[in-house]
Amino acid sequence: MTTLSTTSSPPRSLLDAVRAGVRVVDLGRRLTVGMPQSPNHPPYWHALPRRHGDMVRVDGGSAANDMISMGTHVGTHVDALAHVSQDGRLYGGLDVADALEGGRYAQLGAHTIEPMVRPGVLLDVPAAFGVGRLDAGYEITVADLELTLERQGSTIAPGDVVLVRSGWGQHFDSGADQLFMGQSSGVPGVGAAGAQWLVDRGVHATGADTIAYECLPPGAGHATLPAHRVLLVENGVYIIETMALEELAAEGLHEFVFVLSPLPLFGATGSPVRPLAVVAGE
Amino acid sequence: MTTLSTTSSPPRSLLDAVRAGVRVVDLGRRLTVGMPQSPNHPPYWHALPRRHGDMVRVDGGSAANDMISMGTHVGTHVDALAHVSQDGRLYGGLDVADALEGGRYAQLGAHTIEPMVRPGVLLDVPAAFGVGRLDAGYEITVADLELTLERQGSTIAPGDVVLVRSGWGQHFDSGADQLFMGQSSGVPGVGAAGAQWLVDRGVHATGADTIAYECLPPGAGHATLPAHRVLLVENGVYIIETMALEELAAEGLHEFVFVLSPLPLFGATGSPVRPLAVVAGE
Amino acid sequence: MTTLSTTSSPPRSLLDAVRAGVRVVDLGRRLTVGMPQSPNHPPYWHALPRRHGDMVRVDGGSAANDMISMGTHVGTHVDALAHVSQDGRLYGGLDVADALEGGRYAQLGAHTIEPMVRPGVLLDVPAAFGVGRLDAGYEITVADLELTLERQGSTIAPGDVVLVRSGWGQHFDSGADQLFMGQSSGVPGVGAAGAQWLVDRGVHATGADTIAYECLPPGAGHATLPAHRVLLVENGVYIIETMALEELAAEGLHEFVFVLSPLPLFGATGSPVRPLAVVAGE
Amino acid sequence: MTTLSTTSSPPRSLLDAVRAGVRVVDLGRRLTVGMPQSPNHPPYWHALPRRHGDMVRVDGGSAANDMISMGTHVGTHVDALAHVSQDGRLYGGLDVADALEGGRYAQLGAHTIEPMVRPGVLLDVPAAFGVGRLDAGYEITVADLELTLERQGSTIAPGDVVLVRSGWGQHFDSGADQLFMGQSSGVPGVGAAGAQWLVDRGVHATGADTIAYECLPPGAGHATLPAHRVLLVENGVYIIETMALEELAAEGLHEFVFVLSPLPLFGATGSPVRPLAVVAGE
Repeated sequence: MTTLSTTSSPPRSLLDAVRAGVRVVDLGRRLTVGMPQSPNHPPYWHALPRRHGDMVRVDGGSAANDMISMGTHVGTHVDALAHVSQDGRLYGGLDVADALEGGRYAQLGAHTIEPMVRPGVLLDVPAAFGVGRLDAGYEITVADLELTLERQGSTIAPGDVVLVRSGWGQHFDSGADQLFMGQSSGVPGVGAAGAQWLVDRGVHATGADTIAYECLPPGAGHATLPAHRVLLVENGVYIIETMALEELAAEGLHEFVFVLSPLPLFGATGSPVRPLAVVAGE
Repeated sequence: MTTLSTTSSPPRSLLDAVRAGVRVVDLGRRLTVGMPQSPNHPPYWHALPRRHGDMVRVDGGSAANDMISMGTHVGTHVDALAHVSQDGRLYGGLDVADALEGGRYAQLGAHTIEPMVRPGVLLDVPAAFGVGRLDAGYEITVADLELTLERQGSTIAPGDVVLVRSGWGQHFDSGADQLFMGQSSGVPGVGAAGAQWLVDRGVHATGADTIAYECLPPGAGHATLPAHRVLLVENGVYIIETMALEELAAEGLHEFVFVLSPLPLFGATGSPVRPLAVVAGE
Repeated sequence: MTTLSTTSSPPRSLLDAVRAGVRVVDLGRRLTVGMPQSPNHPPYWHALPRRHGDMVRVDGGSAANDMISMGTHVGTHVDALAHVSQDGRLYGGLDVADALEGGRYAQLGAHTIEPMVRPGVLLDVPAAFGVGRLDAGYEITVADLELTLERQGSTIAPGDVVLVRSGWGQHFDSGADQLFMGQSSGVPGVGAAGAQWLVDRGVHATGADTIAYECLPPGAGHATLPAHRVLLVENGVYIIETMALEELAAEGLHEFVFVLSPLPLFGATGSPVRPLAVVAGE
Repeated sequence: MTTLSTTSSPPRSLLDAVRAGVRVVDLGRRLTVGMPQSPNHPPYWHALPRRHGDMVRVDGGSAANDMISMGTHVGTHVDALAHVSQDGRLYGGLDVADALEGGRYAQLGAHTIEPMVRPGVLLDVPAAFGVGRLDAGYEITVADLELTLERQGSTIAPGDVVLVRSGWGQHFDSGADQLFMGQSSGVPGVGAAGAQWLVDRGVHATGADTIAYECLPPGAGHATLPAHRVLLVENGVYIIETMALEELAAEGLHEFVFVLSPLPLFGATGSPVRPLAVVAGE
């Protein structure tokens, strides 16, 4: 259970606000067999062990069901704090061996990620700069983030979730899988400095429309992941990857209620998710 | 994107309501290897292909990751409309063969379930009757539902999500797996009449704290599933199973914002979920 | 069972022997969803992602395929030497940490099990004692093994593979899954002494028609596994479990060519197998 | 490769032949995460849910175990007759719908493939033509097969298993994964005519060192599979793919005992295998 700090002018109630009408923007990618993902993780696979008609009950009823195999860092997903370590230590200085219990990360695993219903801010960097999307391998600087915030007229408060759009998700939409993964091209994103800027603003979590959140230089692969270190290991800030941010950007929604409800997978290092941006409907 | 009808006295805004403080009650069960589930579905399994230390980068960083195998009707989950058919037809009269495309339910699959941010109502049946939980195999009647609604002073509006508590989830909490599954004991739940009552009130989805939502008579297994037929096939009402409702009941929260964001698994018959009840914090 | 045509003149070589006709007795259990197995391992699951007709090529051709999820110690399987350790050490005194490479058992893993084409001996203990099968929880003693060997008139040479029949596999055949697993009943098998007797005869591998090879006392579960320690850890003798030995026994085949070709699963602790007993045909 | 001690007197039987010493050549590829395979199938994935030390029993013993996810047409594998259909019919004219039972191929599934202990013949086409390997996309003709047979001085008898080497497996050995898969380059192999020639000789099964057995023209992908149709659908001849044939060729072993023991996966369309070539040792 999460309690956020109250403000002086209280709204009538959250439920009334929802009754008054909400618009929900889906920030998750559809999970399909063959979708682009890092080869470091078991890919998403799905089959139907039983289809309608395979077994029909005497009353004419029939049920179909599924079999799924996947990693947790495929599709849109959130990283648990157990995902990345530095020099043998996880967030809070926890020794990686101490986090394990029976072969799973009992400490800092995905089951420890509290559901998020928090103020969300979209930092639409390419829009602030008047471009369709950032260049491959471009590192989003602190100056870029500040300028975007200023031009949008947005503010970030402690506890907020900040989504950094690069426009790179267009390659997911268009089926340009190799470009989206960017193994040879590179991928734009924040580096260690940008991550620290977010930390300094007290963000609870941050997401991006790219496969690794990071700025990946062309041809460099995933050799080092400085933003992960700053966010997950040093500051306990969750990272959300492969988000769908184009619709949010197209509608110019920079502030919204951000909802994320990770599957409480005991001891796992992340979870597939379908994040939402919710705003009052008109 | 979902738009609910507006009301006359608009709240300042949803985001303000969240900024004012929210409490989030987790309605999802933790996913652990060995948890109780129907043998009809691939069980939840999890392993770490890579733990910290297995591969350390030159900069001292290390990542751990996961491998998951599971059905979609395990743990807390939502049924897609493609899950159940009657006489060869799905919701809307769709022929089961026509719903398939390339071997998956392209029509009415889990990817077609819109995220839910809707008014939610808990019908706490055992509390209304002053008992800890309902008896094994007890069918919750229309009279029971109406009396519960009345005693709670709750109302159900079209589009709401209604959660029917039986108290049976206590067996999940206590680790009484065989009882929770109820193969021999039976399980309490609504039958065809109760399901129709919910339909008549225009509910969008309904959930329960039991493994199959249905009333399962002792020893009868899952021979017929009348509530599934009424809800999924005849009326397109989603069903959510194996919910954690004890905390909600203990706090007496009968009305709340219900949030459900199913994984958009293309062509699947359901999705694991972590539903939330959200209320304004004090 | 396969029978090739026979010839009158004695074969000069192995190939001639096969050309002269062989009978192959299948010692493997069919893998089916729901078959009995230890809950310690991911169960065998199977679905068809694509069936015939899901995608038909322009020339009228269509392919169906599979998706499998399983542990390696399910169904008939062989244990790699990496499966069991004692006091932190594997066979040969290898430290368990040193056997790992990138999170898999690069040393002593299933990929290091050489295929076996070796003399095989069936020790049909219940037949030697004139009973249908041994009692639940009965420990097969050294005296039992010696008497069986003597009554059969069999001999064991170094390098042979010895299969110890208890008759318990009848419960697999009859679908008495709970009895076959024997969690409450117990299971007959050799103990530490019997295992040492096999080691002293220089066997290369040994198998049984039970789920754990071991003698499991009623209600004791798998608390300790003395035969595994003696065979795998102390002597590097492979263990084959859940074998189908009833047909071999019914035909009185005590000596044969034993064939085992484990899947070379890199770094795994075992492999599902389908062992064969091959004899010259009549 | 395994060598047992030899004896001077010629063996009287199969068992004597094995006692006299056999050499076993492994024709299976090691299964490793990331190995090349067709994207049409769930890839091979493996993780250890439990490693040594995760749970140590009071007596100091510890067991490690595995979790596997895969298709059946990955690594070295055999196709069941249920794998391919033509115009809605499987081998023997069986309607594809009639082969299904409860959602699996109860007819002609992998569980119906009898283990093979049969005379085996290697047709080493590149050796016969004095080249290291055949060209990408080259179709092995009937004339090629006949010339190879003649130059080798081999004969094929009904019931034999014939392995056709192209040398393309060298790309698997060298890690040239893209070339081995040949999506753009093409892959050498027999076509419909070569397949018919094998059928006319009465072969029981046939294998190759390529990913699809077929001749794949450059850039054509797997649009049509004529050899599969001739072998599986029209004549009930099993196909074995992705075999390791380089060692066999290097040793000039053209005739041997071929051993194949597919996992009896109920209702599946194929099985991973580790085929063996066995010859008398000297």
